[in-house]
Amino acid sequence: MSEWNLKETLLDKEDVFDGTLLHVERWRAQLPNGAIATREMIRHVGASAIVPVDGEGNVYLVRQYRAPIARETLELPAGKLDSKAEDRLQAAKRELEEETGLRAKEWVKLADMAAAAAYTDEIVSIYLARGLEKGEAHLDDDEFLRVVKMPLRELCDMAASGKIQDSKTLCGSLLAERYIGGEHAIEPENCQ
Amino acid sequence: MSEWNLKETLLDKEDVFDGTLLHVERWRAQLPNGAIATREMIRHVGASAIVPVDGEGNVYLVRQYRAPIARETLELPAGKLDSKAEDRLQAAKRELEEETGLRAKEWVKLADMAAAAAYTDEIVSIYLARGLEKGEAHLDDDEFLRVVKMPLRELCDMAASGKIQDSKTLCGSLLAERYIGGEHAIEPENCQ
Repeated sequence: MSEWNLKETLLDKEDVFDGTLLHVERWRAQLPNGAIATREMIRHVGASAIVPVDGEGNVYLVRQYRAPIARETLELPAGKLDSKAEDRLQAAKRELEEETGLRAKEWVKLADMAAAAAYTDEIVSIYLARGLEKGEAHLDDDEFLRVVKMPLRELCDMAASGKIQDSKTLCGSLLAERYIGGEHAIEPENCQ
Repeated sequence: MSEWNLKETLLDKEDVFDGTLLHVERWRAQLPNGAIATREMIRHVGASAIVPVDGEGNVYLVRQYRAPIARETLELPAGKLDSKAEDRLQAAKRELEEETGLRAKEWVKLADMAAAAAYTDEIVSIYLARGLEKGEAHLDDDEFLRVVKMPLRELCDMAASGKIQDSKTLCGSLLAERYIGGEHAIEPENCQ
């Protein structure tokens, strides 16, 4: 697609911080004009997130505390992959049941979202899950969250009025509304 | 809004990595059950992003290379704040003109998006900009990007079919479409 070459060439890289949760690499890269630039980035295993929508158009969310932004958030159920190799749909199924106690019969991939492409390789795969049925919730020991159910339309209205902060929840709710709306749009009697 | 206390209490924090671009803090926090947990997080100055839409419904985007995900992306014009204290709307105006050579007469805040609330405090303020007029592009020395113009509707269709990865671009395009659609929806003749 490019007429211009925008690509950077990786010259070398090193681990510069290896924490409990975060892993930082420093890259030396050659820019399109030949100059050398430093790039620091978080290596992340990746994550899956779920927009679980029931037959009445309700979505199930989790309310939790997020220390980096010092506030509670309302978010899609989500979790990290167990490893880079883990199947993302399997991870979505596991996280949905762990966090909400729900299973789903119908799964649709909505997006692979790069959370912050400037400094992390984290990709969040976002799925629409329908055909919900009861499973078993079982949170990790250090997980504290509360399940909240509301109409998807209401969540999207909250997103549109600045009441949702979390990036995957903004993307997932709006994509799900557009996807479901698109299905409905093929039935012209819905337009009045 | 909470019946339960989900909040973590910060006990102490230290700088554990101070790089050229990334700054990592390690926090010790007390969980709601009294247990102590470690939190590592990226401190980020924050950013502003713009959905610039012209009178014909076209949006202006930038194509650039993102080393962490090793690919070119199509993104909203955006940039970091100069400091935590910088006015976010002023930063949006500066970045729009620097990256696209456009100025705008009408600005609407669409969202304050937490890019990755699990491990960074980065908030991206996303603005809809209309009433576009020509200004002067002037990129930073290490910025390589190409401006792309397309119908906002086409960008949203790309978002809905997995062709957009960047989180702020997914959020901003869908919020702008919903916002503009909402304005149009008050004109019933648009529904056919």
